[in-house]
Amino acid sequence: MLTMQDALARLTAYWTDQGALVVQPMNTEVGAGTLNPATFLRVLGPEPWKVVYVEPSVRPDDSRYGENPNRLQTHTQLQVILKPDPGNPQELYLGSLTAIGIDVAAHDVRFVEDNWASPALGAWGLGWEVWLDGLEITQFTYFQQAGGLNLDPVSVEITYGIERIIMALQDKTHFKEIEYSKGVSYGEVFGQSEYEMSRYYLDDADIEANRKLLDIYAGEAQRMIDAGLPVPAHTFVLKCSQAFNVLDSRGAVSTAERAAEFSRMRRLAGEVAGLWVTRRTELGLPLGTVPPLDAARPPATTQTSEDARTLIFEIGTEELPPGELRSARTQLLRLVTEGLAGTRLTHGEIRVFGTPRRLIAVVPAVGAREDDHVRTVRGPKTQQAYASDGTPTKALEGFVRGQGITVTDVTSVELNGVQHVVFEKHEAGRAAPAVLADVLAQVVSGLRAAKNMRWNDPKLSFSRPIRWLTALWGDDVVPVTVSTLAAGRETRLLRTAAVPVIAVESAETFIETLGVNGIVPDHEDRRELIVVGAQDLVYPDGKIDVTGEAALIDQITDLVEQPLPLLGTFDEAYLELPDAVLTTVMRKHQRYLPVRDADGALLPMFVTVANGPVDVELVRTGNEAVLRARYEDAAFFYRADREVPLASLKERLSRLTFTDKLGSMADRADRIAALAMLLASRLGLSSAVLDRAASLVKFDLGSQLVTEMTSLAGVMARDYALNAGEDRPVAQAIYEAELPRNTGDALPRSVAGALLSVADRLDVITGLAATVGLPTGSSDPFAVRRAVLGLLAVHRATPALASLDLVDALALAAAAQPVPVSPAVLEACADFLAKRLEQALTEEGKPVDRVRAVLAHASRPSTVDVLLTQLASLAADPGFVAVAAAIQRARRIVPAGTAGTYDPSVLKEPAEVALHNAVGEVGDFSDVSGFVEATRGLVEPLNTFFDEVFVMADDPALRAARLGLLAKVRDLGDGLLDWTHLRLG
Amino acid sequence: MLTMQDALARLTAYWTDQGALVVQPMNTEVGAGTLNPATFLRVLGPEPWKVVYVEPSVRPDDSRYGENPNRLQTHTQLQVILKPDPGNPQELYLGSLTAIGIDVAAHDVRFVEDNWASPALGAWGLGWEVWLDGLEITQFTYFQQAGGLNLDPVSVEITYGIERIIMALQDKTHFKEIEYSKGVSYGEVFGQSEYEMSRYYLDDADIEANRKLLDIYAGEAQRMIDAGLPVPAHTFVLKCSQAFNVLDSRGAVSTAERAAEFSRMRRLAGEVAGLWVTRRTELGLPLGTVPPLDAARPPATTQTSEDARTLIFEIGTEELPPGELRSARTQLLRLVTEGLAGTRLTHGEIRVFGTPRRLIAVVPAVGAREDDHVRTVRGPKTQQAYASDGTPTKALEGFVRGQGITVTDVTSVELNGVQHVVFEKHEAGRAAPAVLADVLAQVVSGLRAAKNMRWNDPKLSFSRPIRWLTALWGDDVVPVTVSTLAAGRETRLLRTAAVPVIAVESAETFIETLGVNGIVPDHEDRRELIVVGAQDLVYPDGKIDVTGEAALIDQITDLVEQPLPLLGTFDEAYLELPDAVLTTVMRKHQRYLPVRDADGALLPMFVTVANGPVDVELVRTGNEAVLRARYEDAAFFYRADREVPLASLKERLSRLTFTDKLGSMADRADRIAALAMLLASRLGLSSAVLDRAASLVKFDLGSQLVTEMTSLAGVMARDYALNAGEDRPVAQAIYEAELPRNTGDALPRSVAGALLSVADRLDVITGLAATVGLPTGSSDPFAVRRAVLGLLAVHRATPALASLDLVDALALAAAAQPVPVSPAVLEACADFLAKRLEQALTEEGKPVDRVRAVLAHASRPSTVDVLLTQLASLAADPGFVAVAAAIQRARRIVPAGTAGTYDPSVLKEPAEVALHNAVGEVGDFSDVSGFVEATRGLVEPLNTFFDEVFVMADDPALRAARLGLLAKVRDLGDGLLDWTHLRLG
Repeated sequence: MLTMQDALARLTAYWTDQGALVVQPMNTEVGAGTLNPATFLRVLGPEPWKVVYVEPSVRPDDSRYGENPNRLQTHTQLQVILKPDPGNPQELYLGSLTAIGIDVAAHDVRFVEDNWASPALGAWGLGWEVWLDGLEITQFTYFQQAGGLNLDPVSVEITYGIERIIMALQDKTHFKEIEYSKGVSYGEVFGQSEYEMSRYYLDDADIEANRKLLDIYAGEAQRMIDAGLPVPAHTFVLKCSQAFNVLDSRGAVSTAERAAEFSRMRRLAGEVAGLWVTRRTELGLPLGTVPPLDAARPPATTQTSEDARTLIFEIGTEELPPGELRSARTQLLRLVTEGLAGTRLTHGEIRVFGTPRRLIAVVPAVGAREDDHVRTVRGPKTQQAYASDGTPTKALEGFVRGQGITVTDVTSVELNGVQHVVFEKHEAGRAAPAVLADVLAQVVSGLRAAKNMRWNDPKLSFSRPIRWLTALWGDDVVPVTVSTLAAGRETRLLRTAAVPVIAVESAETFIETLGVNGIVPDHEDRRELIVVGAQDLVYPDGKIDVTGEAALIDQITDLVEQPLPLLGTFDEAYLELPDAVLTTVMRKHQRYLPVRDADGALLPMFVTVANGPVDVELVRTGNEAVLRARYEDAAFFYRADREVPLASLKERLSRLTFTDKLGSMADRADRIAALAMLLASRLGLSSAVLDRAASLVKFDLGSQLVTEMTSLAGVMARDYALNAGEDRPVAQAIYEAELPRNTGDALPRSVAGALLSVADRLDVITGLAATVGLPTGSSDPFAVRRAVLGLLAVHRATPALASLDLVDALALAAAAQPVPVSPAVLEACADFLAKRLEQALTEEGKPVDRVRAVLAHASRPSTVDVLLTQLASLAADPGFVAVAAAIQRARRIVPAGTAGTYDPSVLKEPAEVALHNAVGEVGDFSDVSGFVEATRGLVEPLNTFFDEVFVMADDPALRAARLGLLAKVRDLGDGLLDWTHLRLG
Repeated sequence: MLTMQDALARLTAYWTDQGALVVQPMNTEVGAGTLNPATFLRVLGPEPWKVVYVEPSVRPDDSRYGENPNRLQTHTQLQVILKPDPGNPQELYLGSLTAIGIDVAAHDVRFVEDNWASPALGAWGLGWEVWLDGLEITQFTYFQQAGGLNLDPVSVEITYGIERIIMALQDKTHFKEIEYSKGVSYGEVFGQSEYEMSRYYLDDADIEANRKLLDIYAGEAQRMIDAGLPVPAHTFVLKCSQAFNVLDSRGAVSTAERAAEFSRMRRLAGEVAGLWVTRRTELGLPLGTVPPLDAARPPATTQTSEDARTLIFEIGTEELPPGELRSARTQLLRLVTEGLAGTRLTHGEIRVFGTPRRLIAVVPAVGAREDDHVRTVRGPKTQQAYASDGTPTKALEGFVRGQGITVTDVTSVELNGVQHVVFEKHEAGRAAPAVLADVLAQVVSGLRAAKNMRWNDPKLSFSRPIRWLTALWGDDVVPVTVSTLAAGRETRLLRTAAVPVIAVESAETFIETLGVNGIVPDHEDRRELIVVGAQDLVYPDGKIDVTGEAALIDQITDLVEQPLPLLGTFDEAYLELPDAVLTTVMRKHQRYLPVRDADGALLPMFVTVANGPVDVELVRTGNEAVLRARYEDAAFFYRADREVPLASLKERLSRLTFTDKLGSMADRADRIAALAMLLASRLGLSSAVLDRAASLVKFDLGSQLVTEMTSLAGVMARDYALNAGEDRPVAQAIYEAELPRNTGDALPRSVAGALLSVADRLDVITGLAATVGLPTGSSDPFAVRRAVLGLLAVHRATPALASLDLVDALALAAAAQPVPVSPAVLEACADFLAKRLEQALTEEGKPVDRVRAVLAHASRPSTVDVLLTQLASLAADPGFVAVAAAIQRARRIVPAGTAGTYDPSVLKEPAEVALHNAVGEVGDFSDVSGFVEATRGLVEPLNTFFDEVFVMADDPALRAARLGLLAKVRDLGDGLLDWTHLRLG
């Protein structure tokens, strides 16, 4: 059995064999290997750096007295930095797994999207978690920024979680059982320390002392920055971080402090980073600089066909995130289509495919060359081309010399009304490979992701590195070059294939070649394989909810190239955990498909989808172990949480920050409770259930399980509340306060739940609008958009809230914020709300004109719904149509600013008098139906009026009275409908 | 070339192959690997522990901005702990050197006494520095105590100094040039950090901040101790230590603070240690306990000779310190002599030999068995042995049964006046091997050193571990067993020998066997080999000062078993350094013999003595490199020191503690200066030279060179003073203030120098007597004995000080101490001084009686010398003899307490009247010569008086007068000589 210390030694040796330096762990406590100067400082600047080291990583918050099987206050990271990106870091990484005896072909090793950011360090990067049979064993990141500085070159950071890897390899269920060295367990070596340091971090650390330490460290860090010494400064920043973490684990960090400390650390880290770069430059960059990669040379190519042939273009990438993959396929189609449209090549229908590691465009029947073409080359004006005696001037001579022709080759044509000498140049169509090379190069450089990164390529930028290009037109390589990449006929198969790189014979055989080698390029094909495979696996006992899990299945489909569904099981005992807990773990953490019986009850099994021909038993066992560990964790938290009184859980909310400026989650829960009760009071909806539910709202955020899985908020609240003996309506209301959690989610069914849900969302919207602003574009880190949509949905679905004006309610919520909320902000909120309602309604298929016509009622969305329904049934009512047409006609005739007042005595014509009388008889109405009834008597007089009366009479008094009368008509229904938008008839 | 990181990996792998755990460096700054809990805590208690780890060791005081080639603020230790002692740790260690490619047979690898103690940790151990061709590469310690607790089992601690080893292996002269990993130098990786951390430690660390840190850390450490959590407590003790070291390197630690902090850290470390042991016991000793080694079984043995044969007994040890080896040889001779004397074995003359690794006794002609012997076994009293009818009683029957005899075998004899039944038991003499086994076992357990240690043997204790016993009587093994050791016929050769363990054929061939294999057991033989060899090497250009270097040669002789003198050279440029610097480095640090030319000037060469048949070129080169590095260091310091003004050097004395209670060295220098000037003033010896010298005295203790080599104090002062432009007499006086540095050293020649020297010693004596007490036994940590001897020597050698009364001077010195010096202490000092003078004089060969006769003048040692000289020349003067005899006779006759007063009118006899008159005519005298002159007229009257007068007359008045007269005679010379002791004639 490979011991933990042997594994560390082997990994270290593997990376030193790859040319890495070995350094020692940091000699002050750090939370991660990233903080060691061998990473944080060395990734900065232009010097190369390749290092491997062990880093015992201290996370006071993870202290569990050594009792939790998978969580330690100090865990062991092995950290690797490759600077620059060597071009094949994933392959090197897989080699390291082999070095510790992991058969990467037998296991299911996957790169699953995971983007890393440390705001406190001003650092971020894109990359993956690496999964070994479902177990996250490594963090793999292309480091893009540190200390707020862009990194150039980019570093690859590989962080192994050693305890987890070893537990998997040794088949252990508790970290203490790890065989650390021959015959000595991890618990025997580190157990006491794990307990005692947990005691320090959770119970015994002196808060005042650590607060002082934090300040002293920050002071020394600043002094060292001022002295121009980044190395000691960095050390003190790390000490700050540890002191802060200790305070945090002791629950001693207030919201304001957290914000202030993060800001201070970010600033210090930024200054350290800048200083380091400066100092290294002053020192003449002792390690040299990384030379940029050379641009690729286009491959020599010959055109071997004059017939139309298929074009294939494969852009080989490292594992794209599923979301980006979807977008990339769309982009690829657009870019290829546009690119080809810009050529004179004939071609068939363009199809695109994508897997995590490749984007493929296939274009049949691409002509061998462009058609020949005549181009008119403009020369000098004719007048200036010939002397008065008709001889060519110097201007013409220059032109013909430049074109390589003689004066006899030119003619004269009129261009823009002026005669010019021109040359009709006959151009032969370019050959397909040359044309395609240009087009496809543009395709590659045109790809963009929501979040782009850089790697070792000096020019390209995309979601993940692009590593190879395969471009064939028929049998011929299309000589595409983009930056450092040159296309060839080689494609790559699974990394674990016996021959991972193969040559493709021709474009026509490309897709088949991939298929023969197991790669399924088409998303739909893969999805089908997964769905059918999964259903086969669970038949006949269980079934997969293909519709309910559609999003998950789509995601899984884009995580694999060669799907292999596997059935796993887990201990029935875990079925005692709430369904939501079990499925959240499966879906969110593991991307497993839950299996249910005919009644929809969970069965103790799951389907996972491996990538490629793995050792099924091995991978199944591995995944089962991971799920067991996760369920064990969850059960541990679940049991622990249920032993804590609800009030104690709620108390913990004061330790949780909502946002820097908006206080703790406890503050927020208090605001929600108060607002919900205030609204209830105004609406006459107060109840004992609401009072109790409000007092507990969000308490489950203080539970361990929800801390681990925030998506379970509400669900666990209901469970814990019932367990604690709360009445079912109370428990339900607390749960419903969290609804809806996303579009299409369930909505509160109880009034108390609805009030809490509305109050929650009103609080989020006003608070964030006043502090970070309302979301624009796609960025919405605090999900304000979702809150607004939820608010609208609850209002629309809850009749009891029909009379609640949401703009008024926003004002009430605003008043309770710890920050001022200006009228302008409130107005922006109301506007944002109306816009979201408009969008929602139109997405539901409501006619845009009607939606806009009723949008003035957006502050009461349920009213909008009523009006729209009435409009839908009355839109064809002739009376309504007539009155509406009249109102719209009046709006066109009456100048803006004309009031609906006039001297009726001036009116003489019977039609105008009749209208005057009819208008005077229009009764009250509050909705469209009422309006139709109230205005039914207007139809006839209006028609007559418009037929018989000339509004714009010469007599000014008469004209004024007629306009006033029409203005009164114009104003009918004002406040009910916005007639401008309504399209009728 | 082996890179540094490969070396670390290989050493780690080597020790893990030996079963060691690997742990990580401590994640808080530590000064040495010893402080890592993997050593400091794990060596405590009964659990086994075997570990290897790298420890970047931070020593703020060693900060040199990366400029010094051999000194770093952070150097890399590789630390190994073997608990328990495996029995062969030295051999394992040598294996580790082989693992990094060091050919231990070709190199000169030596274990040179080095005892380790850390008062701040309450820890100590005995062991060695390991030398590789003269370079200290490893600290090897048998850890005896930590946190004030005795360690059982004892741990072996092996600490490799990695940078030094690598510099040697890579042949680099600056640490920055080390090839750290392939193509990357140490300087490139760590250079900037070395500079910047030096800046922090030496210049930029905020003193107030670090003071606060120190207090906060100490507070947390104490709180954790109180909470029963040794692990976090220990961490905070380490942080205390680092904060203290930072303050120290910033020169911010006052004497009082240092004492207080050391005391606090010692207390905290002790409490942590105790708590750890308690906690481990509570946890049930998770790693088990170390089983004690079994006692050895005596080897089966047969006696194959009935003739007298030679006995050899070899006690094999790990490398004994030279001082202990000398003592051990003496002990061995005594123990064997006494042991054999307690047997009835005949034997020849006992001889003993010793090398660092073996103590040998050789006894020729040891009889094959003891003579037969009759022993009288006492039975019951005869009266009780027989009934009245003469039949044996039960008592007698029991006795004969017990002896296995019959009643006819007994006789009756008188014992202590009572008749007893006895049995004359004829006992055959025991065979030699059996008798010798007992004797030799006692020899082993009887060995003692000045400082003893324990190892894996549960019972034995000695200077270093005893690892084997070889005991042969003729051809037969003597079956000695002592604790876990059993003697055999195997002896061990050099560890690097092709066959390191060989069987010895017989006792008679033993010494020859050793000799054939290169071992030279006899000290004198080895010394001769060294002296002759060294002289041959340097002939004819140079010579070795065999007399002057006798102590060094003796030491070298006892550092090797097979001496191989080698000649090395060094760059002539270094000859510009002061002679004392060069020779101090050679002698003290390297045990090299300096080579001088005919005029006594140093030549750029040295002789080192390797142990065994090494690769001469390799070892020479290595030693030359070591000396070069040391000289480079010294030159670095020397140049730096000479650039610092003397006043600045002197200012640094305030940072140096003299003792906790007696202030800093600056305080001490001030006291010396003031006292010297006070004495000068009283003696009329004031001078400008003295004033200036006093103001500078001891300034060189503030220099880097003297900090490194304290024995150069004074020598460097003179050099630096001259360099700074001081007058030669001033420079000389400052130098002479340090004289004599040891017995036989030069003495001050100038009055100013003598005054300063005297003041220095008076200060030491009074201060230490009042605080730690005067030395008793061999313990004299502050060398008070040497100070007293120096004081006496200077007084005796300096005529200008003849009138200085040292007891008065002690009182003056006492008055200037920062602590009260009681009259009792001063009296003890005077007494101590007199005793040392008596000892010195008798050791010089002065007759004890005369010494004692003049010792009343000990406070003026030069007066004692004068009196002794006069006594020596006048002791045979008949007049003196006669008067002295009379005085001594009078002392015997006259009762104690009789005053020398009488009524002269009572005296009638002519003889008594004549004596009375003669006594009245005795004139003044101040020395022995004067006394002889003054009493010359007494000789005749005294003789007559004793011939003719009966002192004890019946008449009381007459008797009283005669006794009074004699009492007056008795008191002659009182205060000059103590007549009690004087032996004359």
